[in-house]
Amino acid sequence: MSEPWVTWEGRVLPEWTDYNGHLRDAYYLLVFSYGTDGFMDGIGLDANGREASGHSLFTLECHLNFVHEVKLGAPVQVHTQLLAHDHKRVWLYHSLHRAGDAEALAASEQVLVHVTLEGPKSTPFETTTLARLATLRERQAGLSSPRFIGRVITAPELPVNG
Amino acid sequence: MSEPWVTWEGRVLPEWTDYNGHLRDAYYLLVFSYGTDGFMDGIGLDANGREASGHSLFTLECHLNFVHEVKLGAPVQVHTQLLAHDHKRVWLYHSLHRAGDAEALAASEQVLVHVTLEGPKSTPFETTTLARLATLRERQAGLSSPRFIGRVITAPELPVNG
Repeated sequence: MSEPWVTWEGRVLPEWTDYNGHLRDAYYLLVFSYGTDGFMDGIGLDANGREASGHSLFTLECHLNFVHEVKLGAPVQVHTQLLAHDHKRVWLYHSLHRAGDAEALAASEQVLVHVTLEGPKSTPFETTTLARLATLRERQAGLSSPRFIGRVITAPELPVNG
Repeated sequence: MSEPWVTWEGRVLPEWTDYNGHLRDAYYLLVFSYGTDGFMDGIGLDANGREASGHSLFTLECHLNFVHEVKLGAPVQVHTQLLAHDHKRVWLYHSLHRAGDAEALAASEQVLVHVTLEGPKSTPFETTTLARLATLRERQAGLSSPRFIGRVITAPELPVNG
């Protein structure tokens, strides 16, 4: 698959915008969170699967880059790439796009862990889920390398220029 | 000042929780975004200041660490530390706490840029804002070093353990 996987699409809602009429920072992450829901649906951890297994994914850590402001009502899509996985974690890359546009308006690298909701505590993926993750990795092998991964925020002591 | 600066406090609202009754990942960032509002109020970029100057702050990049789940109705606070600043950017560290508790439930390192809303485009801080940032840095010099800064997400190719 060289086409991106669209895990969510919709329009920017009024309650997601700030006093400037732009998508507020937290709501970029909400839209990516909806993308994670789409990813979960794709690997069998949809609502029915979660109900049956008592398993889910928890976000451990994420990084966000805000590239461009997004206005109220804009039609947008989340593209999701499975970067890596082990026996109980996935590394995802979400990017936000105007519908049909390759340029990213924002991006997020994320680590999520598979949990049993009794606890909650981390637990290995089931064999069927691992097989789906492996298949997805193969299907996405042709995708281009994401732009915003492995990033670190540096907080240098910079001179104050009045 | 060795006491943390509480930039927001409140309770976890029903619309912020997911199907597990826990604060959803994006709403940790919303609460930190409210902390940024509190920070802006503290440096004179409150609603009146923004209206008068046409200036605001845009988030460029952030990192989030989710340490502990937070349940519906929990009373929480955001603590905010100004890590650094230059002539047009600030580096902030927000942490989320149960009211009165030092342990962080989540944390976010962020870079924000000062903009003029005509454009919008980046623009230097005014002298009065720079003076407030410098005073805040001095007041916070005694705070302990934040736990979750300078972090990078690594996505190794790990073996798949069924």
